[in-house]
Amino acid sequence: MSSFQPPDVLLLGPGPSPVSSRVLDAIARPTIGHLDPRFIGMMEELKELLRYAFQTRNALTVPISAPGSAGMEAAFVNLIEPGDKVVVCQNGVFGARMRENVVRIGATPIMVSDPFGKPIDLEKAEAALKANPGVKALAFVHAETSTGVESDAAVLCALAREHGALSIVDAVTSLGGIPLLADEWGADAIYSGSQKCLSAPPGLSPVTFSERAVEALKSRRTPVQSWFLDLSLIMGYWQGGGARAYHHTAPINMLYGLHEALLILREEGLDAAFARHRHNHLRLRKGLDAMGLELLVAEESRLPQLNAVVVPEGVSEMEVRKRLLDEFSIEIGAGLGELAGKIWRIGLMGAGSNERSVDRVLEALAVCTGRKAA
Amino acid sequence: MSSFQPPDVLLLGPGPSPVSSRVLDAIARPTIGHLDPRFIGMMEELKELLRYAFQTRNALTVPISAPGSAGMEAAFVNLIEPGDKVVVCQNGVFGARMRENVVRIGATPIMVSDPFGKPIDLEKAEAALKANPGVKALAFVHAETSTGVESDAAVLCALAREHGALSIVDAVTSLGGIPLLADEWGADAIYSGSQKCLSAPPGLSPVTFSERAVEALKSRRTPVQSWFLDLSLIMGYWQGGGARAYHHTAPINMLYGLHEALLILREEGLDAAFARHRHNHLRLRKGLDAMGLELLVAEESRLPQLNAVVVPEGVSEMEVRKRLLDEFSIEIGAGLGELAGKIWRIGLMGAGSNERSVDRVLEALAVCTGRKAA
Repeated sequence: MSSFQPPDVLLLGPGPSPVSSRVLDAIARPTIGHLDPRFIGMMEELKELLRYAFQTRNALTVPISAPGSAGMEAAFVNLIEPGDKVVVCQNGVFGARMRENVVRIGATPIMVSDPFGKPIDLEKAEAALKANPGVKALAFVHAETSTGVESDAAVLCALAREHGALSIVDAVTSLGGIPLLADEWGADAIYSGSQKCLSAPPGLSPVTFSERAVEALKSRRTPVQSWFLDLSLIMGYWQGGGARAYHHTAPINMLYGLHEALLILREEGLDAAFARHRHNHLRLRKGLDAMGLELLVAEESRLPQLNAVVVPEGVSEMEVRKRLLDEFSIEIGAGLGELAGKIWRIGLMGAGSNERSVDRVLEALAVCTGRKAA
Repeated sequence: MSSFQPPDVLLLGPGPSPVSSRVLDAIARPTIGHLDPRFIGMMEELKELLRYAFQTRNALTVPISAPGSAGMEAAFVNLIEPGDKVVVCQNGVFGARMRENVVRIGATPIMVSDPFGKPIDLEKAEAALKANPGVKALAFVHAETSTGVESDAAVLCALAREHGALSIVDAVTSLGGIPLLADEWGADAIYSGSQKCLSAPPGLSPVTFSERAVEALKSRRTPVQSWFLDLSLIMGYWQGGGARAYHHTAPINMLYGLHEALLILREEGLDAAFARHRHNHLRLRKGLDAMGLELLVAEESRLPQLNAVVVPEGVSEMEVRKRLLDEFSIEIGAGLGELAGKIWRIGLMGAGSNERSVDRVLEALAVCTGRKAA
């Protein structure tokens, strides 16, 4: 056994996305203590940078010290208690995971199901809220990584609020790639991941909680079932000032990397980043059109950062993916769940969303599917 | 705001410990996909390296994708169910955290309490097991980071087994620093952290579970309350072969770092690493003796990697720590809980356990406490 030397792969799958050398340099800086005043200063900046990305003034805006799945769990275990009812919208793999979280809390999920590849049906979501008075929360995925679909987060958050429910928003794949307006939408809990449109390595989950969510947290009848994810304790560590209480040892170097990735996002500006994601998505789509390859999702719901391409008849989904990786050093994603074998997922996220990436994957796809590039 | 440039600090606190440039270089290598065959090859090596460190053949030996606190929670939520009884030995801050985990599961903790600074009383632990037939597990901290005390893990694991209970061992601060013999002791669940004697950055929690523990996991009556920490799902991702199932996105770059840190440990050899920790502890102790500074813990229970130094009368605990950091760029730790203000914690862990570190901290302590160095 010797030191691991990873190959250089162009990451155009559903995440992780390409990590820039600026971010890699940042995570390799010397480790310092998690209670060091200089580190605490960096944490304060990190919260500000996250507020910029989430477009929020929420005080409780922090990175959870674990991947996006833990961010999801943090949202549910902090806001939902045993016996609560939660409307869970499912139009892909991650809605099913939300349901699983609700069940494990001892709460009752009320499912609103839509087909993989379609956005959440707003009327069905509204009907579920109406039919179940006293629902604690409405949970949905803003950008479904498993299908490449965007759902209407603004309307869903408004519906939740209208019916006295909290909104729980999965923004793992949306943060930094498409508009995510935490305050304007009145979203109550949003969680994301570091390894999608933020282009940091995987391992951190930025979250933001509204004042209403914090109130709900404070008025819980039962303790949060997870000690590690208990936000009342995590807040004690991430709060400003001298009263910072030790909770767990923060993943120091990973946080350096997230700080740098968020600086890069702020330097570019959110609007420019969104426009870039859109531009490169359109470039990809044009190339796919020219090859006769179709996208799974209807135009109005397509995510620019995650493109679900329908595998054409007679082409082996896995063989193409394997050749892309082996011969072209490009990673794209397979379908998940009921879409396994039926789609490829091409991510153009964060630093991966550029013309060169688009052109490289189009050229390689043309070779591997035996089609003619534009 | 600009890129964060951490200062160079000699980390001689309770963790994180100094991270070598080999490990920092490793984490800065290009991010690849968490399902890439090359990454999966690295994961297989990582499991082997962890088995070496834990001295075990346990199949279920993996790093949890979050800090040590999450490793603790993984041990409890996977093995303990609502209604179970658990004997929790407490002789420091981390025993209290174990209790908290048991309570949040809806299980009943039976506390065996010993004073901060003393090892767990084996007779009291045995009496608690005898007095409570049907106890599901005995939980204890092998190396108490809050006090610098080693407890007799071999005997405690044997007692658990004798009474039909599983053993849950907190080895956050012991792994790589003092002998930890998972198989020889028959320990059932052990969790550790990356940032202590392994000298990787914080953020990962290596765990190992015995076959008996895996059986207990398989015969649970209820689902594991945490989806993120559910080992039956995590096993699906970390198992070898082609059936690897996506669970969460692994913290790729952090795992490169842990792989490298474990290679360094294996190159040195466990016995040599233990001897080095012991040697530098004795060097520190000699210097402290010469200055008239006392250790909190009696000689037979002292951890070489975590030295609790009694703050002498008339000396400000916080002022000395602050001067060490500001003037000498050395971080040492404060006391926790009832020992706050009463002790300093000097960690000589992993790459931090060397003669130069010992000499630097002794010289600085002499200046800051107005004592004469040897």
